[in-house]
Amino acid sequence: MPGTRLDLSRIEAARRVIDPIFLDSPLYRCEALEPDLGCAVSIKLETANPVRSFKARGTELVASLLADNGAGAVVCASAGNLGQALAWSGRGRGLDVTVVAARSAPAAKLDRIRALDARLELVDGDIETARERAAAIARRRGIRLVEDSLDIETCEGAATIGLELTEAAPSFDAVLIALGGGAMATGVGHAVKTRAPGVEVICVQPLGAPAMARSWHERRVVTTDSIDTIADGVAGRHPIPAVLDDLLLVADDAILVREASIIAGMRLLLEHAGLVVEPSAALGIAAILENRDRFAGRHVVTIVCGSNVDVDAYHRWVAR
Amino acid sequence: MPGTRLDLSRIEAARRVIDPIFLDSPLYRCEALEPDLGCAVSIKLETANPVRSFKARGTELVASLLADNGAGAVVCASAGNLGQALAWSGRGRGLDVTVVAARSAPAAKLDRIRALDARLELVDGDIETARERAAAIARRRGIRLVEDSLDIETCEGAATIGLELTEAAPSFDAVLIALGGGAMATGVGHAVKTRAPGVEVICVQPLGAPAMARSWHERRVVTTDSIDTIADGVAGRHPIPAVLDDLLLVADDAILVREASIIAGMRLLLEHAGLVVEPSAALGIAAILENRDRFAGRHVVTIVCGSNVDVDAYHRWVAR
Repeated sequence: MPGTRLDLSRIEAARRVIDPIFLDSPLYRCEALEPDLGCAVSIKLETANPVRSFKARGTELVASLLADNGAGAVVCASAGNLGQALAWSGRGRGLDVTVVAARSAPAAKLDRIRALDARLELVDGDIETARERAAAIARRRGIRLVEDSLDIETCEGAATIGLELTEAAPSFDAVLIALGGGAMATGVGHAVKTRAPGVEVICVQPLGAPAMARSWHERRVVTTDSIDTIADGVAGRHPIPAVLDDLLLVADDAILVREASIIAGMRLLLEHAGLVVEPSAALGIAAILENRDRFAGRHVVTIVCGSNVDVDAYHRWVAR
Repeated sequence: MPGTRLDLSRIEAARRVIDPIFLDSPLYRCEALEPDLGCAVSIKLETANPVRSFKARGTELVASLLADNGAGAVVCASAGNLGQALAWSGRGRGLDVTVVAARSAPAAKLDRIRALDARLELVDGDIETARERAAAIARRRGIRLVEDSLDIETCEGAATIGLELTEAAPSFDAVLIALGGGAMATGVGHAVKTRAPGVEVICVQPLGAPAMARSWHERRVVTTDSIDTIADGVAGRHPIPAVLDDLLLVADDAILVREASIIAGMRLLLEHAGLVVEPSAALGIAAILENRDRFAGRHVVTIVCGSNVDVDAYHRWVAR
């Protein structure tokens, strides 16, 4: 695929670097969801691993590269899942990991980052503030800054999910991918479009954090001033131009969904699939709920990308 | 291992028959649970598949054998998970599946059995009443009766979990297995004791349904008159002599746990692992909670064997 930063042979090679505990995650049809959704639904479950999200696929690549090159420290900004994954991958390789997060990030995510021996620095503001602070730390300490979605390893790691999807039988018609910074959407999208071009690649973002989806529709970077969504994992405001370029090559659509649909999706996944998911992981189900005609009768895969929630907030969301 | 009905080469062969969607389930360390439990804990997750329990490993063998022999129909008694699994495995092979269950079984389990095109017959009474009724149907219709734990395929299917455990690195010190009729305990126990004899095999049953655990301790079949536990999946009263014989060869202990500990286990799995589990799947955590000194500092694997719960009951259990 010309013009993309992604490369299938590098993605295939990534599978030999990532700890197998994060690979070959469950992929299964969930018929109990289907009466409510009107289509065949398969779940790609990225939560049954030590960090409860897909992010370690990418941090395994980053940490491995750093350790091979003799680096001793690394820093990232994170909404919570990248930081937890980098802490896990770095700890196993003797790296000194610093994570910068917003003070308002879910306590469960912050607690896990600390428990994994990372230094955690909290900032007032949102993920964009954290990104600036992490960059400053990297400059000052002269250490590697991991930038989610910009750093190709984060996209290549996520892309291994796409390889696994295309190797599954039976095949499916569309894949629904949570859209934040774009690492998962560009990575999975590239693997799917290269290996199974007939499969529709659909990104889903909350209406309350629509920067990348709007950018995709307008084919230019659109930033936003504020964030208003419970889907903390995908809540950015400043899309990265190179990531948008990659996304334009592989995404067939970028759908925006309402908060009520995200909550309804979380509830359906609990009630009919027995899955606790964080809001970002319910975006795919939310997209089906808002676009029933579009998906009717088709076979859709949704990537359940994380389950790191504050339990009290979760109970409030799913309570009827 | 002399005297057992189980055979490692047959268990290894079973892996070539069972649909891969049920094999190689996630196995991962869950550090977030550990501060509350005082030991290293790994989870073997048997819920991320189309029937949300381990039971299909066995029903795949049964249904495959029946289909190969040209059988057209099959019947079983079930607390809910075996019936759902047999319905799934039978549907894929064109079998007419009848499931007999207690009217008091969780509605979620009964609904799924119906949704998978099985005939569902409900009886007043408990699983033992359902077993009698299923046997009568098998005699009258001249069809195969699947008897959980007595039929060796149900044990061999479960035993494939044991193979996967022994192939994992790093190794562990003990495996905690929910004990009901004994298919999982004898099957997993056999595989583990054959391949990794140093690993302790510990069965866990509720105090409110203690028949098999008591039988193990007394080395003879002990029956009980009633069942009083929320752990519907392991609630039998009449242990099968041949299964007890197998269990005596592989189990190092059979622990009984209180209902409050089962609920505490479910809550810990939700809050620190993000897992919805049915009560039977929390028995291992309950056993650690009641025996902290015994497990302190060791590495324990617990098999999370099912997640089919009625959501309303689940919310009541885990609410604080």
